[in-house]
Amino acid sequence: MITQIPLTEYKNRINKIQDALKRRDIDILVVFGTDCEPQNLIYLSNYWPQFETAAVVIPNEGETALVIGPESETFAREFSTIEKIFKVIEHRESSEPNYPNERLDTYSEIFNYVLNGKKVKKIGISGIQIIALPVYEAIVNASKSSEVVKADDIMINVRMKKTANEIELMKQSSRITLKAFEAAINNIKAGMEEIEVAGFIAAELFRNKAENFAFAPYVLSGKRTNQAISRATHKIILKNEPIQLSFGCRYGNYSSSIGRPLSIGKMPEKYKKLVNIGIATQEKVFSTLKPGIKAKKVFETYWDFLVSKGFSNYFLYGPCHGTGVMECEHPFLESDSDYILEEGMTFQVDIFLGDDEFGLRFEDGALITSSGAEVFVNEYREVIEI
Amino acid sequence: MITQIPLTEYKNRINKIQDALKRRDIDILVVFGTDCEPQNLIYLSNYWPQFETAAVVIPNEGETALVIGPESETFAREFSTIEKIFKVIEHRESSEPNYPNERLDTYSEIFNYVLNGKKVKKIGISGIQIIALPVYEAIVNASKSSEVVKADDIMINVRMKKTANEIELMKQSSRITLKAFEAAINNIKAGMEEIEVAGFIAAELFRNKAENFAFAPYVLSGKRTNQAISRATHKIILKNEPIQLSFGCRYGNYSSSIGRPLSIGKMPEKYKKLVNIGIATQEKVFSTLKPGIKAKKVFETYWDFLVSKGFSNYFLYGPCHGTGVMECEHPFLESDSDYILEEGMTFQVDIFLGDDEFGLRFEDGALITSSGAEVFVNEYREVIEI
Repeated sequence: MITQIPLTEYKNRINKIQDALKRRDIDILVVFGTDCEPQNLIYLSNYWPQFETAAVVIPNEGETALVIGPESETFAREFSTIEKIFKVIEHRESSEPNYPNERLDTYSEIFNYVLNGKKVKKIGISGIQIIALPVYEAIVNASKSSEVVKADDIMINVRMKKTANEIELMKQSSRITLKAFEAAINNIKAGMEEIEVAGFIAAELFRNKAENFAFAPYVLSGKRTNQAISRATHKIILKNEPIQLSFGCRYGNYSSSIGRPLSIGKMPEKYKKLVNIGIATQEKVFSTLKPGIKAKKVFETYWDFLVSKGFSNYFLYGPCHGTGVMECEHPFLESDSDYILEEGMTFQVDIFLGDDEFGLRFEDGALITSSGAEVFVNEYREVIEI
Repeated sequence: MITQIPLTEYKNRINKIQDALKRRDIDILVVFGTDCEPQNLIYLSNYWPQFETAAVVIPNEGETALVIGPESETFAREFSTIEKIFKVIEHRESSEPNYPNERLDTYSEIFNYVLNGKKVKKIGISGIQIIALPVYEAIVNASKSSEVVKADDIMINVRMKKTANEIELMKQSSRITLKAFEAAINNIKAGMEEIEVAGFIAAELFRNKAENFAFAPYVLSGKRTNQAISRATHKIILKNEPIQLSFGCRYGNYSSSIGRPLSIGKMPEKYKKLVNIGIATQEKVFSTLKPGIKAKKVFETYWDFLVSKGFSNYFLYGPCHGTGVMECEHPFLESDSDYILEEGMTFQVDIFLGDDEFGLRFEDGALITSSGAEVFVNEYREVIEI
């Protein structure tokens, strides 16, 4: 079993991007990331910043560079698969230290270095949705008269289909998450705060050598179960109320996530009915996934199924989104999704149903295989009454 | 003991900012935040986004609004102390869902709402260091011909001095962190991965009802102890090598952090010498802190002390930075810091010394009192050999 992506695969990734840059006539791609949006940095360099932000600068040929903030040099040197490292003030932390007397680099110097003094004509940026303004402005200032274009699609395309190593790490990540789910249901008790249950989850994830949460765990009880995005709080968990657990971890840089509704003691009848619809809907979506099918066709099958069962008014979101380094990454699967599913793509099949009273989420990772889909976790897809 | 900031205090904060806006002749302040940089959002609204970003829009008089992404409405409605909530596409998650058929708001509509149709002349932005480009552009587009200015100082000034409630929550947060430190040293063993020790820390933080980490815990061993910013890894911890624990949590929205070096079995003599210098240096800085003193004077005293002990070549960073909602926030305390320390300011006294071989960090929170400094955790400031 591997514990990390081999160095050769990191080099292949850079090569693929350089090929795409040549095809698109882009001289340099700047890939931005942060502590909470590190996916592209991790994918290209194995470096995941904390406090500060970072970027990877890829010329269409020659040596790639990692750009970090002033405080992360020893940290980045340990993790980064990219040897050349620059430190730039615009990547500093938000408390804006000045670092008097420190010699820092500039994007002009970096562009000059990676292009070997050649003039830059077109710069692509990946991470436009998240790039911090001062970093963007530093890039534009350094670009002089050259064109700066949005080039997110280059990273998206390279990352969309997973390799055997990536899939193996995602499966291992899923197994750790399943163990943490079992720790949660073995320890949860009425009268606990939601946040205490997040503690059992955290303990088991790290004990099994996860590197971090995939996102701050959702432990939601009662009416809170209808929150699409949420967190565990100090709310006391009651007997016989809906409870939703949704969480995941990152292992070997790859994310997993599991979503299951449950109750302590008997589940309210109305909720149980929705739980059974959730199970049937997720299974329907699993059976629809296969290579060659248009993504929006999956949405339509899902939607028609919900309508046929009389539960389309419970639709809040779904049924799938891409997954990999980031628990939620491109591509989303929505009613307007025009792309075709391909072998090697990975999705979170994420069935989220609810109304003003309560909600639930069955969520599991799945791989598009040559003929259908392989689901990473099949346990506990049932009515869980503890 | 309080568990959260009372609603009246949130209202006071908005009032103070509105006063500052009037003084500065700014019509609207837009305050941006993300999952990993939520400090200003939490401070103003108790809302801390996940996956998506958010902003608070404060007019110089009248009603304040919270601006979120398309998926967080039920989540934000539960947490937010601000009633009026808008959903804007530019705050969506980085996987860029389209949300077909969803009716979303725009910054033009929001500015029109908070100003009651009055024309906007000047817009201030807080969070310039971190603001995502599409959000910035949406604000600029909505501002029409009005001026858009950096106005980070408004939030910084309001947040710099803490209230009694804030200090109480910071102390509670520190107590939880101390318990987790004890869990770590009671469970750490040679042969464990660093990440497993992070597991004991996580378990104890959440068991004591922390809401999250202050930052991903540092469990650093051997040569890794010299990393200013870092994370726990899969490295195996050895007997008789330097080990550094640095971590904290957020409780009632307020951060804490503790830093201590230690070893399993006897500490290498050379490291022990540095540990004793670290202790003496931190105590020197504590004794220097008091209201009325210029911040850079604290740096100078710290520096002179290091020089007098012959350890100035071990200087990597320090000796203090602001702390509160965020473990590291304004103001930094550096050699060029011109501001005056005032009663009610809170700092992490963060002594980080090291070289190529190893490093250490003694770090604790401290409050500037009427006559000196109150340190939040005084335990374990010693040579720790387990």
